[in-house]
Amino acid sequence: MPLSGQSDFRSAIDFTALAVERTMDRLLPKGSDPEARLFEAMRYSVLGGGKRLRAFFVMASSTLFGVASQAALRVASAVEFVHAYSLIHDDLPAMDDDDFRRGQPSCHKRFDEATAILAGDALQALAFEVLAHEDTHGDPAVRTQLVAGLAQAVGPHGMVAGQMVDMDTEGKALSMGQITRLQRLKTGALISFACSAGAILAKASEPARHALIAYAHDVGLAFQIADDLLDVEGRREDTGKTPGKDAAAGKATFVSLLGRERARDQASLLADQAGRHLDMFGNKAELLRQAARYVVDRRA
Amino acid sequence: MPLSGQSDFRSAIDFTALAVERTMDRLLPKGSDPEARLFEAMRYSVLGGGKRLRAFFVMASSTLFGVASQAALRVASAVEFVHAYSLIHDDLPAMDDDDFRRGQPSCHKRFDEATAILAGDALQALAFEVLAHEDTHGDPAVRTQLVAGLAQAVGPHGMVAGQMVDMDTEGKALSMGQITRLQRLKTGALISFACSAGAILAKASEPARHALIAYAHDVGLAFQIADDLLDVEGRREDTGKTPGKDAAAGKATFVSLLGRERARDQASLLADQAGRHLDMFGNKAELLRQAARYVVDRRA
Repeated sequence: MPLSGQSDFRSAIDFTALAVERTMDRLLPKGSDPEARLFEAMRYSVLGGGKRLRAFFVMASSTLFGVASQAALRVASAVEFVHAYSLIHDDLPAMDDDDFRRGQPSCHKRFDEATAILAGDALQALAFEVLAHEDTHGDPAVRTQLVAGLAQAVGPHGMVAGQMVDMDTEGKALSMGQITRLQRLKTGALISFACSAGAILAKASEPARHALIAYAHDVGLAFQIADDLLDVEGRREDTGKTPGKDAAAGKATFVSLLGRERARDQASLLADQAGRHLDMFGNKAELLRQAARYVVDRRA
Repeated sequence: MPLSGQSDFRSAIDFTALAVERTMDRLLPKGSDPEARLFEAMRYSVLGGGKRLRAFFVMASSTLFGVASQAALRVASAVEFVHAYSLIHDDLPAMDDDDFRRGQPSCHKRFDEATAILAGDALQALAFEVLAHEDTHGDPAVRTQLVAGLAQAVGPHGMVAGQMVDMDTEGKALSMGQITRLQRLKTGALISFACSAGAILAKASEPARHALIAYAHDVGLAFQIADDLLDVEGRREDTGKTPGKDAAAGKATFVSLLGRERARDQASLLADQAGRHLDMFGNKAELLRQAARYVVDRRA
């Protein structure tokens, strides 16, 4: 059953999570080689749940253009591999030093630091390997666009830069503009890639791509504000993370800058605005509009 | 002046090192953005010397087929970016814990651990970004082959697996077969990709590709044996590394298994054998044959 058969957002995101989990399970290495510990650490960090929101963005944007779900699931897996790698490295003692992730011991606690570093490194390589493989798309021009798009999103002008700024600005006061830029890099760039993946796979028109990127822009920001709110208000049972972590680390967040109420209003505004960027797609974009609402209303 | 104008190996490798250094300098990010520290760490670890042997293999294999040096230099840079990332991560306290690299403080000593982890992560992404860019080759099918080749060489069935096994087997006795497999993964896979890059760029015949891979196979092994010998016999002034590191870490090496003399003989044998794999290219492969000799005779 393809995603387009799902009209209700909750069942659509659950359906995606299940399908992408199966695809990732197939793409991840396994075996009894001497390096099996590496494979185990990769599987431990990738599999076993999560909202798979980034995967959902890939699948929902692909559904807009009627892209075959088999291709989209591979791209969704690559995005989740990169996301998982970034979480493994972020959790390391030298970085955010977090012992828990999704309510489970983080990778370096379950295994060890060296294994966690290597598992992250291997997941990044695997993501590009999956995108470059002919099963992802018959046209190599599309595959290189996917590779280039992901590399830009997560490289020195994307996700990694955001993480660097995040580390460097701990304990410093940041302006709204600075926090927004940080978020765009740290989480926004990968979300943008995920949302535009469907358009790349379908060789869609420039206006269609731009609409999705504009949507991603607002959704990404809304997502981060909601994340900051959850750090303050969320319960460990729901989020699986140590609450109050950002405040304890002296991190400037949207909430520390705006206060809870204005932050909540801002996130809600952005979610509505995100949906309106998709007017050109009419009803077909309903799942993406609901996703924008979900992003700000979620509890985990 | 293209590499094909260089008949003498020593001037050819120096020439390549200079050219690739210039290309990498152009491809690496710079600026005064808040994440400038990340850019500095990437530049610190990549630029400023080294033999650039992997880059040389890309350039020399490209010269065999008359590939434009501008394209080859981009692939050579991508390979060196990945090599540099692997060294940064290998040097981390949780991994080999080495304070020096090429006679300079290693990245995490010059900067800090978090910056070193991120610089490595960003260099890996940058390598794939460079390969996927249209300046690397006009044909996207070639670019995806390069991306797939590099990803396989450095991912969970390549370089990272080798590093995992290397960490896991410290202090354990290994057989010749186990050490050979470890080396193939840890250093051999990337060297194989570098040696076959010219054939990919030129869309060369299967026999030509296989000849280069067979060459790389033997050169890679010879390289590792020579490296193990240098760890025992090398001087810090030459190698820029802490001598006796492997023995102190209880690592099984070709030297600990074979003894110095037999290891030296074996490396020499492999270098000659490597050269013979290139018979089909006649005199055009002279630089690659000399490179195989250099690999075993070098002092650093």
